[in-house]
Amino acid sequence: MAEASPALLSALREVSEEIDRQFDALLPVPDDARANLYKAMRHAAIGGGKRLRPLLVSATARLFGVDRVCIARTGTAIEAIHVYSLIHDDLPAMDDDDMRRGKPTVHRVFDEATAILAGDCLHALAFEILAEDETHGDPFVRVELIGALAHASGPSGMAGGQMMDLEAEKSSFDLATVTRLQAMKTGALIACAVEMGAILGRVPVEGRTGLRGYARDVGLAFQIADDLLDAEGDEALAGKKLRKDGDAGKETFLSLLGVDRAREQAHLLVDQAIEHLHQYGPEADVLRDIARYTLERDQ
Amino acid sequence: MAEASPALLSALREVSEEIDRQFDALLPVPDDARANLYKAMRHAAIGGGKRLRPLLVSATARLFGVDRVCIARTGTAIEAIHVYSLIHDDLPAMDDDDMRRGKPTVHRVFDEATAILAGDCLHALAFEILAEDETHGDPFVRVELIGALAHASGPSGMAGGQMMDLEAEKSSFDLATVTRLQAMKTGALIACAVEMGAILGRVPVEGRTGLRGYARDVGLAFQIADDLLDAEGDEALAGKKLRKDGDAGKETFLSLLGVDRAREQAHLLVDQAIEHLHQYGPEADVLRDIARYTLERDQ
Repeated sequence: MAEASPALLSALREVSEEIDRQFDALLPVPDDARANLYKAMRHAAIGGGKRLRPLLVSATARLFGVDRVCIARTGTAIEAIHVYSLIHDDLPAMDDDDMRRGKPTVHRVFDEATAILAGDCLHALAFEILAEDETHGDPFVRVELIGALAHASGPSGMAGGQMMDLEAEKSSFDLATVTRLQAMKTGALIACAVEMGAILGRVPVEGRTGLRGYARDVGLAFQIADDLLDAEGDEALAGKKLRKDGDAGKETFLSLLGVDRAREQAHLLVDQAIEHLHQYGPEADVLRDIARYTLERDQ
Repeated sequence: MAEASPALLSALREVSEEIDRQFDALLPVPDDARANLYKAMRHAAIGGGKRLRPLLVSATARLFGVDRVCIARTGTAIEAIHVYSLIHDDLPAMDDDDMRRGKPTVHRVFDEATAILAGDCLHALAFEILAEDETHGDPFVRVELIGALAHASGPSGMAGGQMMDLEAEKSSFDLATVTRLQAMKTGALIACAVEMGAILGRVPVEGRTGLRGYARDVGLAFQIADDLLDAEGDEALAGKKLRKDGDAGKETFLSLLGVDRAREQAHLLVDQAIEHLHQYGPEADVLRDIARYTLERDQ
């Protein structure tokens, strides 16, 4: 993260601490046969990760002066969905990964059954948080948040993209299909984070065009950067196994475009993302910094 | 089902057809790399099962004259949660089952990765259905439905109970612990079905005492009947493998109470469940029939 701006660094730190605090409070280990289930959720959810999605919720919602408690709860909900998806994607039957965020994966520390259930529980927890009464007074807001998150994480979004990704090892996808796959697999939840910030800010749908354009471009740039990281990154810094796409013979932005054009494309997308924020002043600088940061990250 | 009353039989048939119709409309198979994902969801969700939870939603909500569309959507949402949990519970890492509802399990027809993702997608779908605008106009109602369902299916409910059940093979639980395990694993979602019916009917919390007592007793009777079915039932009629608890050396109501006392206890619970409905007239007869039916079923 050497290249992150001081403002972004401070925002990243603040969001990370807040999300850790929230999960710590939500997941006290019970003194019964579910102890390992909670330990597994804590292992995956606390202390690690970039917290990009909660950061996007926060940076967007703050444009509209949203209350911090609402921001924190919403960020925790979307991060719970992200973490559940990582636990399930790492399973032997899926991507079969041993390391995640610099730690052994949940099914390695515990077992597969516990990992499946820990993922399922974080999935349910996300919606329970959003449905709770205290934090988002207005039920119209809560229902819109829930609808957006359920849609972005289901078969038309994240989980559908993961299914396509599993098929990608067997098929030979073209650039349009890889773009669609990635827009679903990672793009949908990243876009949802920005959307949730706008929903919290009570921005009407017709006022979200700029933010949606920003989110779409950042999501795609993030994925191209992920492909570059997979090909060129340092496993110790990344905290997970790299060089996987090439080994699996999967078509990616990189295999289809080559390193130079992929990098160029990512820079173009970041410029375009920032351009989408033209209606906002310096209060949107953290969003601009996040866009630039997608290309600089090493994890 | 030889013992089900004509009124119950007609209600069961109506609900089953409605749920099949809903899933059929919600899950059109797309012409892309997600085709198997949707086929897997359809395999698990359409054509089979007792539809007990949607039936409980419906029988409860009709006490209060709730609109049929709301009932159907809510029933589909809770059934989506139930079906996702069956898909995940059947996985090799969990209960490792080959048959379910008379058909091969999802991971046998497709593969484990597809089964995990199909479960995850039905999980998300449940909340997307409830968050949708058209069907449950009042967002207070929608948010309360979502909160109840998320709580009942998460670590304090169904998924927590499944974790305890996996531990039960390693530990020796006493009657109090087995009762708690079952109250979570199957009781929570059955209770949630009745609760959702009451929420749709806008029954205030203080007016739900009788219905909650009914749901608690029916859930427990259902589980004891399930244990009896596991020990004494016909695999062909049940459509799944039986005699599993004994083989796994797991403590159940049956192993702790013996067949005669377990059966006696189940009958007592059914009587008690019906007693909880004393404030309702003949309009609650389907609920009463459901309580009796829990003991007569062969699947």
